[in-house]
Amino acid sequence: MKRFAIVGHVAETSGNFSLNDLPGSGGRMDLLCRCVSSSLFLSHDLRRDVECYLILCGGAGPEKTILFRGSEVRRLSPDERSSAALIKRALSIPCGDEFRESTPGVYIRRGGLARLLAEIPFAVLDEAGEDVRKVPELPENYLLSDHQNFTLEEEEAVAGADRYSVGPRSLHADHAITVLLNEIDRRESGWV
Amino acid sequence: MKRFAIVGHVAETSGNFSLNDLPGSGGRMDLLCRCVSSSLFLSHDLRRDVECYLILCGGAGPEKTILFRGSEVRRLSPDERSSAALIKRALSIPCGDEFRESTPGVYIRRGGLARLLAEIPFAVLDEAGEDVRKVPELPENYLLSDHQNFTLEEEEAVAGADRYSVGPRSLHADHAITVLLNEIDRRESGWV
Repeated sequence: MKRFAIVGHVAETSGNFSLNDLPGSGGRMDLLCRCVSSSLFLSHDLRRDVECYLILCGGAGPEKTILFRGSEVRRLSPDERSSAALIKRALSIPCGDEFRESTPGVYIRRGGLARLLAEIPFAVLDEAGEDVRKVPELPENYLLSDHQNFTLEEEEAVAGADRYSVGPRSLHADHAITVLLNEIDRRESGWV
Repeated sequence: MKRFAIVGHVAETSGNFSLNDLPGSGGRMDLLCRCVSSSLFLSHDLRRDVECYLILCGGAGPEKTILFRGSEVRRLSPDERSSAALIKRALSIPCGDEFRESTPGVYIRRGGLARLLAEIPFAVLDEAGEDVRKVPELPENYLLSDHQNFTLEEEEAVAGADRYSVGPRSLHADHAITVLLNEIDRRESGWV
């Protein structure tokens, strides 16, 4: 299993954003939606061995985490509005301490990065990290930030984590996921 | 200069599609919009040395080509709806035989793949092509198809072109562009 977790620092925890304004009213929800697509989509197929965690930190309420499971998700198209609609639906159901399914393969619970890190060890995708192509064995789980840097508190939480870089230029989170999955695809298929 | 051209086989040549339904009413315009973003966006920056050509073949009218120039484009955000709005604006102005600017850095003209190939030599991104990592010198210009395969006529038009593959899995066009640009970034920065 491969896992990607993306911290959405201003991503709305209420479902009260507009599907017609994902960057503004959704708190850069567009970027998180593209991360869902880059994590899960192949051409005419889904990556069934990938999970994508969206950590929503914006708005008034407590932090929430939404999980998309590639092996179970249904009714998901690659466009931003499609995953945004599933996120909106997840945010509309009562949100408890344990993951609860809102639509097939999409789950939501209360809690943010600290809780997720206590359960799953994540490496950090970071421009200053080690080149992913040069790492003998790549880890399974990767944490990324949205358009903002990690906060000081978040940096402290991941202080001991391994850090990897996908290349010399600073990329959007969804593009970094795509490049990393290509490296993993190559290793799994003996292309490297 | 790097150039990407994407054939949108069912992409609307009229501006009469809804920004709220890019996949359906736009003829998978969502995919072309993501190709614009993956061609032009770095984190908090634009790739000023990239041009992105969208070849729109859907709808009733003649084929049209829309050009986004990274060096000139303004008012473009990474979300699909942002580039879709600029495409809609381009489709709303009178469309002649020569490129005409609709908004800063965005141009439109009549004509499709045949005309573009007569002006610029494009390599083809194709799963059966040579591994981009193994090619001593990569070309500047790449042609991709949307969610459909190239038609027989298109295949004939590119019969003599070099073909390159970005990896062992079949990817969406926007993801393939991201992976290819990473390979180019690495070579330009001495990371390979």
